[in-house]
Amino acid sequence: MQNYLDLLVKNGKEIASKGKVAGYIPALKKMNSNYVGISVIDSNKNIFCSGNTNIDFTIQSISKTVSLLIALEDRGFDYVFSKVGMEPTGDAFNSLKKLETVQPTKPFNPMINAGAIAVTSMIKGDSSDEKFERLLNLFRRIIGDDSIGYNKNVYLSEKETGNRNRSMAYFMKDAGVIDTEVEESLDVYFKQCSIEMNCLQLAKLAYFFSNNGTNYEGQKIVSDKNCEIVKTFMITCGMYNESGEYAIEVGVPSKSGVGGGIIASSSKNFSIATFGPALNSKGNSIAGIKMLKMFSEKNNLSIFR
Amino acid sequence: MQNYLDLLVKNGKEIASKGKVAGYIPALKKMNSNYVGISVIDSNKNIFCSGNTNIDFTIQSISKTVSLLIALEDRGFDYVFSKVGMEPTGDAFNSLKKLETVQPTKPFNPMINAGAIAVTSMIKGDSSDEKFERLLNLFRRIIGDDSIGYNKNVYLSEKETGNRNRSMAYFMKDAGVIDTEVEESLDVYFKQCSIEMNCLQLAKLAYFFSNNGTNYEGQKIVSDKNCEIVKTFMITCGMYNESGEYAIEVGVPSKSGVGGGIIASSSKNFSIATFGPALNSKGNSIAGIKMLKMFSEKNNLSIFR
Amino acid sequence: MQNYLDLLVKNGKEIASKGKVAGYIPALKKMNSNYVGISVIDSNKNIFCSGNTNIDFTIQSISKTVSLLIALEDRGFDYVFSKVGMEPTGDAFNSLKKLETVQPTKPFNPMINAGAIAVTSMIKGDSSDEKFERLLNLFRRIIGDDSIGYNKNVYLSEKETGNRNRSMAYFMKDAGVIDTEVEESLDVYFKQCSIEMNCLQLAKLAYFFSNNGTNYEGQKIVSDKNCEIVKTFMITCGMYNESGEYAIEVGVPSKSGVGGGIIASSSKNFSIATFGPALNSKGNSIAGIKMLKMFSEKNNLSIFR
Amino acid sequence: MQNYLDLLVKNGKEIASKGKVAGYIPALKKMNSNYVGISVIDSNKNIFCSGNTNIDFTIQSISKTVSLLIALEDRGFDYVFSKVGMEPTGDAFNSLKKLETVQPTKPFNPMINAGAIAVTSMIKGDSSDEKFERLLNLFRRIIGDDSIGYNKNVYLSEKETGNRNRSMAYFMKDAGVIDTEVEESLDVYFKQCSIEMNCLQLAKLAYFFSNNGTNYEGQKIVSDKNCEIVKTFMITCGMYNESGEYAIEVGVPSKSGVGGGIIASSSKNFSIATFGPALNSKGNSIAGIKMLKMFSEKNNLSIFR
Repeated sequence: MQNYLDLLVKNGKEIASKGKVAGYIPALKKMNSNYVGISVIDSNKNIFCSGNTNIDFTIQSISKTVSLLIALEDRGFDYVFSKVGMEPTGDAFNSLKKLETVQPTKPFNPMINAGAIAVTSMIKGDSSDEKFERLLNLFRRIIGDDSIGYNKNVYLSEKETGNRNRSMAYFMKDAGVIDTEVEESLDVYFKQCSIEMNCLQLAKLAYFFSNNGTNYEGQKIVSDKNCEIVKTFMITCGMYNESGEYAIEVGVPSKSGVGGGIIASSSKNFSIATFGPALNSKGNSIAGIKMLKMFSEKNNLSIFR
Repeated sequence: MQNYLDLLVKNGKEIASKGKVAGYIPALKKMNSNYVGISVIDSNKNIFCSGNTNIDFTIQSISKTVSLLIALEDRGFDYVFSKVGMEPTGDAFNSLKKLETVQPTKPFNPMINAGAIAVTSMIKGDSSDEKFERLLNLFRRIIGDDSIGYNKNVYLSEKETGNRNRSMAYFMKDAGVIDTEVEESLDVYFKQCSIEMNCLQLAKLAYFFSNNGTNYEGQKIVSDKNCEIVKTFMITCGMYNESGEYAIEVGVPSKSGVGGGIIASSSKNFSIATFGPALNSKGNSIAGIKMLKMFSEKNNLSIFR
Repeated sequence: MQNYLDLLVKNGKEIASKGKVAGYIPALKKMNSNYVGISVIDSNKNIFCSGNTNIDFTIQSISKTVSLLIALEDRGFDYVFSKVGMEPTGDAFNSLKKLETVQPTKPFNPMINAGAIAVTSMIKGDSSDEKFERLLNLFRRIIGDDSIGYNKNVYLSEKETGNRNRSMAYFMKDAGVIDTEVEESLDVYFKQCSIEMNCLQLAKLAYFFSNNGTNYEGQKIVSDKNCEIVKTFMITCGMYNESGEYAIEVGVPSKSGVGGGIIASSSKNFSIATFGPALNSKGNSIAGIKMLKMFSEKNNLSIFR
Repeated sequence: MQNYLDLLVKNGKEIASKGKVAGYIPALKKMNSNYVGISVIDSNKNIFCSGNTNIDFTIQSISKTVSLLIALEDRGFDYVFSKVGMEPTGDAFNSLKKLETVQPTKPFNPMINAGAIAVTSMIKGDSSDEKFERLLNLFRRIIGDDSIGYNKNVYLSEKETGNRNRSMAYFMKDAGVIDTEVEESLDVYFKQCSIEMNCLQLAKLAYFFSNNGTNYEGQKIVSDKNCEIVKTFMITCGMYNESGEYAIEVGVPSKSGVGGGIIASSSKNFSIATFGPALNSKGNSIAGIKMLKMFSEKNNLSIFR
């Protein structure tokens, strides 16, 4: 296994030069585009790492999986999906045209930004601080590491420059999708995107979904049902508007973030996290996709097989 | 003339019951849907009024004509139209999808909300108060009445509930169309929409455009060129997405507002304002359009004749 | 099992009255809206039927699964997906706006009409008759029944009234997506949609996909890889723009047709076909979805579990 | 005047090199991109020509003005506008997305291709030949020249390659906008686009609209009202999606064609035709627009003045 992962990282490093680090905020832009790492946990809980797996990076959109979980636990299936849809969109993750063109206004799914912001607005708590703390605590329990936190520089940059997300949020506020105070909900959202961990820690998140809500230490944290819902979205909408192609080529429930991380939760034998900040044109880690494709093919991981 | 205007008002009252007062804020909703008025200034400066012409109402989108004028005077043609386009859209006045779907982002024209907000952000001034004061003063000079002010209730309601406009503004901020502080620009915009006058005063605004920048009292206030630009937009985009039909049926440069007002500035003989808060499905005063159609046909006012 | 299927049919019949038989051509419209049937083949090849499983109906969009298979076999993965994408769209199955709005023109996936027409145009053959014959023969081998044919009335009606599909085809011809003669490709497409079978026969098609290209009689007909591709599309795009919700609620690769059929190919234990011509607003059999949801939940069939 | 026109042509020639001849069919592509001409008829019927005014070219979209006239005369205002709208679109002339996205399906105006095809389908006649003959005869009477005909090469090329127009036509057939046989209506449409004349002859068409339906020889051919309608569309939609900018910069009812012609019908003193096959990115003659802008400014022709 170790040798194979080393080979994957070598392949990932080669392709990384064709990608581009996310440049919309300085804090992301300065990340080394050459970093590539992969961490794998097998069904016997053995952990394998290769490449840059101890570098901290922000998880960005990967956080949408856990915010959906907490919203489902807090509000229940019916409430969450009365406000947010279940359909892939075919549009970019930061698109908002369908909020206007498809009536009634309902973000198409919880994995695009609009849907994720709406989901985050549903987290229970008396203040944005409390809401975020509840979410962060869930991350800490899932990963089994109380040191998990968020990157303040990234958060502040996101908050300052996040006007596209702000635009969506006000649109949804106007349409009654969001009923909380907009800036407070955005505050939680920008913080959750700035949660930071390394590739190995991220593999624990993948493990948690692979095992339907039981973490690496064996604690059952959320219901099977809610994990199954999240994994379904990971297939249909987890890789932005490259989800369909990724389902064909990898076929494992996965979620990417523009920070360069990807989690892949095979229900069979492997929980995988990859890291590689150089992104392709759809916003997915170019090395990550390469490695996951190779790993899935070799191990027959596609759930469509 | 007086008899004919009385006849028009009678016709307007009959059709008003088929329209609906703008209901998005309480302050507008409580307006009497049965009000109908028309004020006409002829080429000899004679003024004729019929119906409810002394009721104050907010001018709403009609303010976009004067904010465009001041932006053109402040910034010049090239700057203004580097940020805002000149094309009709075919979409509703509060649509923002084209901000996303047509690249680079540029609101299509200064008469839709997105374009008008961008235009307002260009008004010179050290603060939103100073910007608005400069705009309000221009209104007072044009109409020749220093008592013109804005309706605070309406303004506060617009500010509180204007999240669709806020959404557009943040989108344009993100895209670099607006480079001022968003909430400050919106503040000026919400105030300008809340400027209040009666139908007779509004006819003075129509007169000013009919006479290419010279007001009823004979003062030349802005350049012919800038008035001509505004009048062109009044034909191509002045009546929301009913502009094309209105150009066919009335054919006079006009601008409507959801407060129920319309100005019509024939370059020939007549300057007209109508009032009628009951709106049709496109957001235009149903009685106003009826009266203007009859008046234009009788007097051969279409500029396309 | 038999009792359980009878219960499902009872549930299906109850909900069928809330749906509506496809009405765009007379031949479909006259189908009895009360028909409901289900056929199940288990992993031991036992066959269970309940309800109206011996009524012939046209398979419509279900044919897209087999036409994609033959195009993949004829042209290879790279060629097919150079012309047709892999992404869900979020739009209706007969939408063509993305052909214009997303450049370069490429139908988003092979399960929407535009993509399916493009796929059908790739089937090899010297004439439209030969192309269709090759496709029909594949159906016959898969189902193991040489009597499978198509309904001429339905075909002629589709051909006569299929101007929306014709519109898409000419758009794609113009954009270079289709390089065959348009009317000939449409002819094959209209015929494939008119292929007729009953629910039990349809279950054999589901079996074939469940078993990665081996039919009920044990013949290996196409490659595992190509079946896997089709099953992936069945999850991401198989149920029109209800695919995402269906993936959450049923979670089994499935394909529906407006004739009222659905195939569901669990890779675990069951191959299922349902029939119920009363459709919901998305164009899927309302009774079929109800029965499949119940069956999947009871038997834990979701591939995301 | 002659000297001034010579100066305009000099300016036109200079800018022509920045444009591009329409290249979608060979017959258009081989036109000399350096041709520039202008013909002006003043209010005393004096005719002035400068540059390449005796070269025949196809009038393309300029034909939409006359086909609208004949449809209005044949069917009346109410019928025509029950099928085709009156609003500018903001989209390209060959766009069809709004046919799908705005319900009920109704091409937005008679100057975009979709609307023009629908209008042409309304021309009375027992066959496509008779329909076209009636249209051609109207052209001959308007221009006062029985030798006016169409270019068969261009017509055949348009017919062969016109799949985008075919796509629109079938969409509209499906939606009930067109109720004639599609290929027959397209046949008339492709022929009308291929009607050929030179710049001087085209100026006679401009004269006819300037004079509300009376031709250069003094014959009253159609009603004032219908000419007024056409001229209104010439302002709001006559220059493709550059109409708004052109209204600001030239301000004269005008219609362009991708063959390089433009007619401009000032109701004041001048009827103008320009020719210059090099087009800008919106599909309008780059030299033509330059010359018309200069001419309008010098002579104060804007109807918004």
